[in-house]
Amino acid sequence: MSGEVDRLREQVAGLHAELVRYNLVAWTAGNVSARVPGRDLMVIKPSGVSYDDLRPDNMIVCDLDGVVVDGDLSPSSDTAAHAYVYRAMPDVGGVVHTHSGYATAWAACGEAIPCHLTAQADEFGGEIPVGPFALIGGDDIGKGIVATLAGHRSPAVLMRNHGVFTIGRDARAAVKAAVMCEDVARTMYLARTLGRPVPIAGEDVDSLYDRYQNVYGQPGATVTAT
Amino acid sequence: MSGEVDRLREQVAGLHAELVRYNLVAWTAGNVSARVPGRDLMVIKPSGVSYDDLRPDNMIVCDLDGVVVDGDLSPSSDTAAHAYVYRAMPDVGGVVHTHSGYATAWAACGEAIPCHLTAQADEFGGEIPVGPFALIGGDDIGKGIVATLAGHRSPAVLMRNHGVFTIGRDARAAVKAAVMCEDVARTMYLARTLGRPVPIAGEDVDSLYDRYQNVYGQPGATVTAT
Amino acid sequence: MSGEVDRLREQVAGLHAELVRYNLVAWTAGNVSARVPGRDLMVIKPSGVSYDDLRPDNMIVCDLDGVVVDGDLSPSSDTAAHAYVYRAMPDVGGVVHTHSGYATAWAACGEAIPCHLTAQADEFGGEIPVGPFALIGGDDIGKGIVATLAGHRSPAVLMRNHGVFTIGRDARAAVKAAVMCEDVARTMYLARTLGRPVPIAGEDVDSLYDRYQNVYGQPGATVTAT
Amino acid sequence: MSGEVDRLREQVAGLHAELVRYNLVAWTAGNVSARVPGRDLMVIKPSGVSYDDLRPDNMIVCDLDGVVVDGDLSPSSDTAAHAYVYRAMPDVGGVVHTHSGYATAWAACGEAIPCHLTAQADEFGGEIPVGPFALIGGDDIGKGIVATLAGHRSPAVLMRNHGVFTIGRDARAAVKAAVMCEDVARTMYLARTLGRPVPIAGEDVDSLYDRYQNVYGQPGATVTAT
Repeated sequence: MSGEVDRLREQVAGLHAELVRYNLVAWTAGNVSARVPGRDLMVIKPSGVSYDDLRPDNMIVCDLDGVVVDGDLSPSSDTAAHAYVYRAMPDVGGVVHTHSGYATAWAACGEAIPCHLTAQADEFGGEIPVGPFALIGGDDIGKGIVATLAGHRSPAVLMRNHGVFTIGRDARAAVKAAVMCEDVARTMYLARTLGRPVPIAGEDVDSLYDRYQNVYGQPGATVTAT
Repeated sequence: MSGEVDRLREQVAGLHAELVRYNLVAWTAGNVSARVPGRDLMVIKPSGVSYDDLRPDNMIVCDLDGVVVDGDLSPSSDTAAHAYVYRAMPDVGGVVHTHSGYATAWAACGEAIPCHLTAQADEFGGEIPVGPFALIGGDDIGKGIVATLAGHRSPAVLMRNHGVFTIGRDARAAVKAAVMCEDVARTMYLARTLGRPVPIAGEDVDSLYDRYQNVYGQPGATVTAT
Repeated sequence: MSGEVDRLREQVAGLHAELVRYNLVAWTAGNVSARVPGRDLMVIKPSGVSYDDLRPDNMIVCDLDGVVVDGDLSPSSDTAAHAYVYRAMPDVGGVVHTHSGYATAWAACGEAIPCHLTAQADEFGGEIPVGPFALIGGDDIGKGIVATLAGHRSPAVLMRNHGVFTIGRDARAAVKAAVMCEDVARTMYLARTLGRPVPIAGEDVDSLYDRYQNVYGQPGATVTAT
Repeated sequence: MSGEVDRLREQVAGLHAELVRYNLVAWTAGNVSARVPGRDLMVIKPSGVSYDDLRPDNMIVCDLDGVVVDGDLSPSSDTAAHAYVYRAMPDVGGVVHTHSGYATAWAACGEAIPCHLTAQADEFGGEIPVGPFALIGGDDIGKGIVATLAGHRSPAVLMRNHGVFTIGRDARAAVKAAVMCEDVARTMYLARTLGRPVPIAGEDVDSLYDRYQNVYGQPGATVTAT
């Protein structure tokens, strides 16, 4: 197992650089985790540590109740939410949380992002839904994420007044969903403040989603099998 | 021919860095291709590969029906659209596709970008037109691009609910058109949400376009002869 | 004392890079200072010097009336405001001033930023208040900062028609407050221009603030104890 | 003279990096020039050359009618406008032209930027004015710049439907004015689309402008003496 955990420590530490690159995070406000396949464990960012200072060896290993099993620092203050998702959704291998600005603006308004873009149909299969307001500190955030995603194809949920959680088959897929969620949230913000976005017919959304999930990319590298 | 293909592999791989530099693409959502002059071949990005990982030797060579003739990976999922343009428009030597945010916001609203900027008159000769909604997977996108550009001076078309396609005499000119399209789309978004943009008289647009296409830049280096 | 001043010269010079990284400043328009603990001294940026050229040895040491005690250059033109804050607020160890764009837009409208985001409740404990218009050159700016912050949990104040001042237990905490202030100002600008932001109940704001100030981050590293 | 021209070639080539750093230009759309003190000569960017490729030795030396006296490439297509300004305004030592997005949005609407920010009062002494629409190719743009700036303290003018021209005591001061113009244009765009910007009293604008022009920065380094 140790080799697998080491690989995930390296992947999780490295993937935070994508949150910085795509301008999804300010200061230390965003985190990535990965499930350790076949074990009731996850690898997650330490709390309040600068992205410049993340290294494989300061990532934290927790069990799926959020209890630290390896690591000198406290885990992310969002650990309970990540852990709840892994317990409730066995196919999820990675979770990402950000307060990326455009997506969080939709979340502050309590509005789902309607689907007017082929890229959104591809990645999210329709609207990006809004989850409930929930206080940090227990399972309320985790429950809100799972309950909302259960009824949607979307791997992203906008938690009201808070920010974004995304899921994926692995941590990289969850990071991709976080990047694409902010990109869609930005384009749809611009469209809504510019004019009147034109709807895409429901059957076209279905067709785009089906094709993208099954055809896009390289053979054998399925995209976001959540 | 091999030397020419090698040169285009290098150019096409390198030009994707301009899409990243000008913030036109998120994750892997954008692609550049070049026609191999005098041959029914094109060089294009592989599908779903990160911009960090593009190199001359993983570019894909396809014929103008989109069939791979050299390359180990699948070509861009937009290959059919690029190929259609090359078949229909013999003077086009390069094609670019992006979902750049401001331009795509205009596309989501189904609105052409009206010409209120001298830079737009220079590069696009008037409005940047909107093409039809079209599903990926056949020739519909390619047909929409060609039918729309046929009636305009513009080397850029906003495909409804989708994104931007640009053309050029070569791949570099098509990339320039993609960069300038997003720049114009952004400035005109800002102008429209700020106040009431002032029109430019049609004869002034004509005069600016004519001068720019024939005088700007260094002698012998015509700008965007599409 | 010399070792402590040297440490603060290095910290203050270095922290200006965070203002640049987070796009809070144009040209030379923003500055960081630190109190020398236990001494009536502060370390501050020189006036009108490019961020590229800041080094520990060109930082200026002033007394808390703004008189230079060590340094060859003139101190920041905002030195009087920094000094006033240190005289009036003995627990403040760092002060930052910027004209960061989103926060300054709220300041230009004379509007406090209402609290619709959990991140704002965490860091600012409620709204980010607006201070009075004040001319540079005496103690008016300093008095406006102190009078406004006295009634709020917020470590940031939007000075009307001017920009942002933030305070912290040390210079790093004040820089963090400046970064988070702009992030919140941006997200709330986007939310307000997009739709109708949903309020957070007052007791939930209190609960979030209390938890964040006492639990977040690593043990022993309290966050923004102002 | 050769030493002075060499120094200006290096300065002008290098200052273009500031246009890129502050995101004022796309592709090749922006240029800097410097007057050769005491000579009827100027140093300016070559036309249509990428910012990556600018070096001291490919800068162009022209006389003040825009005729090339040293250089292998064609000078900027805006050379006539720069030359006109140098002929008409003997105290101007540097000129900058950009299509920076926020400022150009105000220009597209034909609106001056009203003064609601202390930073704008400092640098521009009041509103940033709008100049007339003018076609490229003769002295119309130059005449419009000079006629507009004659009645204002501002070192920046928004040419209608076009972009920004700024002047300064030297090329660096003109670049600073271009950077600050876009910064002010952005903040005032945000303020106008957010709410109702609060005016600054005329005498306060005068007081801020007077102080900044005479006190700010290091002794002996006057700021933007135009």
